[in-house]
Amino acid sequence: MSNALGNLRIDGDRLMERIFRLGEVGALEGGGVCRLALTDADRQGRDLVVGWMKDLGLEVRTDRIGNVVGLRAGRTDGPPVMTGSHIDTVATGGLYDGNLCVLAGLEVIETLNDAGLTTQHPLAVGFFTNEEGARFAPDMMGSGVHQGALSLEESLAVRGIDGTTVGEDLKRIGYDGAAPVGVFRAKNFFELHVEQGPVLEEEGIEIGAVTGVQGISWTEYCIAGTSNHAGTTPMRLRHDAGYVAAAIATEARQIARDMGGDQVGTAGVIALEPSLINVIARRARVTVDLRNTDEAALCEAEQRMADRVVTLARDEGVEITARRLARFEPVDFDPAMVDLVAATAQGLGHSVRRMPSGAGHDAQMFAPNCPTAMIFVPSKDGISHNVREYTTPVEIAAGANLLLQVMLSAASR
Amino acid sequence: MSNALGNLRIDGDRLMERIFRLGEVGALEGGGVCRLALTDADRQGRDLVVGWMKDLGLEVRTDRIGNVVGLRAGRTDGPPVMTGSHIDTVATGGLYDGNLCVLAGLEVIETLNDAGLTTQHPLAVGFFTNEEGARFAPDMMGSGVHQGALSLEESLAVRGIDGTTVGEDLKRIGYDGAAPVGVFRAKNFFELHVEQGPVLEEEGIEIGAVTGVQGISWTEYCIAGTSNHAGTTPMRLRHDAGYVAAAIATEARQIARDMGGDQVGTAGVIALEPSLINVIARRARVTVDLRNTDEAALCEAEQRMADRVVTLARDEGVEITARRLARFEPVDFDPAMVDLVAATAQGLGHSVRRMPSGAGHDAQMFAPNCPTAMIFVPSKDGISHNVREYTTPVEIAAGANLLLQVMLSAASR
Repeated sequence: MSNALGNLRIDGDRLMERIFRLGEVGALEGGGVCRLALTDADRQGRDLVVGWMKDLGLEVRTDRIGNVVGLRAGRTDGPPVMTGSHIDTVATGGLYDGNLCVLAGLEVIETLNDAGLTTQHPLAVGFFTNEEGARFAPDMMGSGVHQGALSLEESLAVRGIDGTTVGEDLKRIGYDGAAPVGVFRAKNFFELHVEQGPVLEEEGIEIGAVTGVQGISWTEYCIAGTSNHAGTTPMRLRHDAGYVAAAIATEARQIARDMGGDQVGTAGVIALEPSLINVIARRARVTVDLRNTDEAALCEAEQRMADRVVTLARDEGVEITARRLARFEPVDFDPAMVDLVAATAQGLGHSVRRMPSGAGHDAQMFAPNCPTAMIFVPSKDGISHNVREYTTPVEIAAGANLLLQVMLSAASR
Repeated sequence: MSNALGNLRIDGDRLMERIFRLGEVGALEGGGVCRLALTDADRQGRDLVVGWMKDLGLEVRTDRIGNVVGLRAGRTDGPPVMTGSHIDTVATGGLYDGNLCVLAGLEVIETLNDAGLTTQHPLAVGFFTNEEGARFAPDMMGSGVHQGALSLEESLAVRGIDGTTVGEDLKRIGYDGAAPVGVFRAKNFFELHVEQGPVLEEEGIEIGAVTGVQGISWTEYCIAGTSNHAGTTPMRLRHDAGYVAAAIATEARQIARDMGGDQVGTAGVIALEPSLINVIARRARVTVDLRNTDEAALCEAEQRMADRVVTLARDEGVEITARRLARFEPVDFDPAMVDLVAATAQGLGHSVRRMPSGAGHDAQMFAPNCPTAMIFVPSKDGISHNVREYTTPVEIAAGANLLLQVMLSAASR
């Protein structure tokens, strides 16, 4: 039977058809999709996926934060081998992102249904509420509550950019389920995702065996200087908030350059007031995003930036207020599961690269509670969170077949 | 008579009263004034000043670009010794700026009227249209047309931020005068102005004898990079428009630091797209304002920046488009007139500092055509173009008395 299972393949066309059909819900003119969490479009997307789950014979449970899990019985009871991700998108999202894994999970189920196969352990496919964080903060909310890392009550009370709370909107779209949270334990968790970065494509590699998720440190710096005339104020008398913001931004680059390795540093926001060509900025805002797979190295990067900020404030005579917007320690996936992904991919004839994830994923919420790993497939030009996000059908089929085989392996032991 | 004239003093209270009365036109709640060029508020301010000119017996002429000149006959005919500035303001302006000189000029006239004195050469007090450039570009428009540096036709056709042209608005407010432009020659031109910078106050000096106006070089850089995920994109694969904008901004500071002297450098605008903490900026815009009193040095600063921009574009793999927004060569005022200002100030018991102007002024349009100089009085905290702009009545009276004496000297020779 092991050999028969090893030759089992998903139906790539059927998977692509589901991807395109889900992509029609909240479709943007000219391509891409807007299905922000807990909007009407999200409800329509959820209804579509839940319908498919039921058609496939899954037992569907919705929990109190709106996560939906479809269960397929095994020959024995117990925790399921699970896959899942999210179907909410950013405002100008692509068709893949979280959708890919949810629909690949359904394709795994349908493939097994068609083959009339029952696994030893149960299987599960889920989608989690508000992974993107585009409408309600924080991101990865549903999986965080699901796995007990976030408070249900606090999450339900979060008020979003449209003025409503998570709890209100869950009720409004009919996804305020009854299943409890913080108690669900999977046997294993596997998430298939587009890389959202350029590495696989650039190196011509088909599969990423994801070793973990980078630690993330987000800080916003607000700088209070003195607005003055750009012509009449001697350099020695300036308190230029704009200069300090620019110097913080270039320091983020310098830190990444000096530390090398997996360290990245980005200043994505720089805003000056009053923002006039001939006026020294009175106020400025700059955000710094530092990431590293190693916690000690990430701390070192943070310390370097903190030191530089102190020096800049003193030398320029400005006040700098630092606000930590996010801080996640690096997450390591289970080495045995990473090995399983890599070995299975090679067994399927794919080139594989072990790599960290630079972005956060629902899988990281499962990692502390069960052996977890992720599969990456290439992103064209590394583009993600963008209507131009693209992965070829061949690459998607490769990822889905790998997910099938990895789940079969885990569900047979 | 020279001694009697030397003892003549203006009435500081009367001057302050006119400053406050003009400041009521377009007054902002909480202080300051908004009297943008060729608006209804500007018309009301013009009507008030023209009324005062007529009350003082001046012969008032309005030219085709809306400049208003009040003439006082001398014992001989010929070009007048002239003073003047502007009464338009920025959107959140103070009470002084250009108004100070125009009203100090009227105070000079009234002082002479009261004393029953007629000068050898005629005197003139003018105010020029749209010095600020806040509603119509370029700035110093009226004085530029007046002195033949700008085209009348092109200036009348300029369309402003409210959609109307200079010509339309001049007609609307009734200041489309008949006097020709580009032909008026003054014997001398003197402009009294607040420093708009912190140097006099910081050094405890009462009068600035302005040696000239810094050359100005304004460039806008638009950077086209590639938007990507801040976590998943390795540093070596980035084309970060935001980093390049920040590096250009810090280079402006570095150039000023390295060159020293009068060189200043400012990046007043930095704007990123999409401006999200975890997204590498796709586009960025940064403006660079470089100024120096020495043309060769200013060219050197421009060349350094241009070289840096080329290097940044190549190293980061971004496209940078440079757009020159303004370029004025430094203006030197007449050494004899600067000496006259400095010596007269010392004779009046004031401390004096020779200094360049970092800002543009109407006087620079006269400098190529007649011996010209400027008088600076201190600006509290160096603040200008701001509702908190402030100069004490004592400092203002000192400046106005100096203007009186300098005009008397020039008008007697």
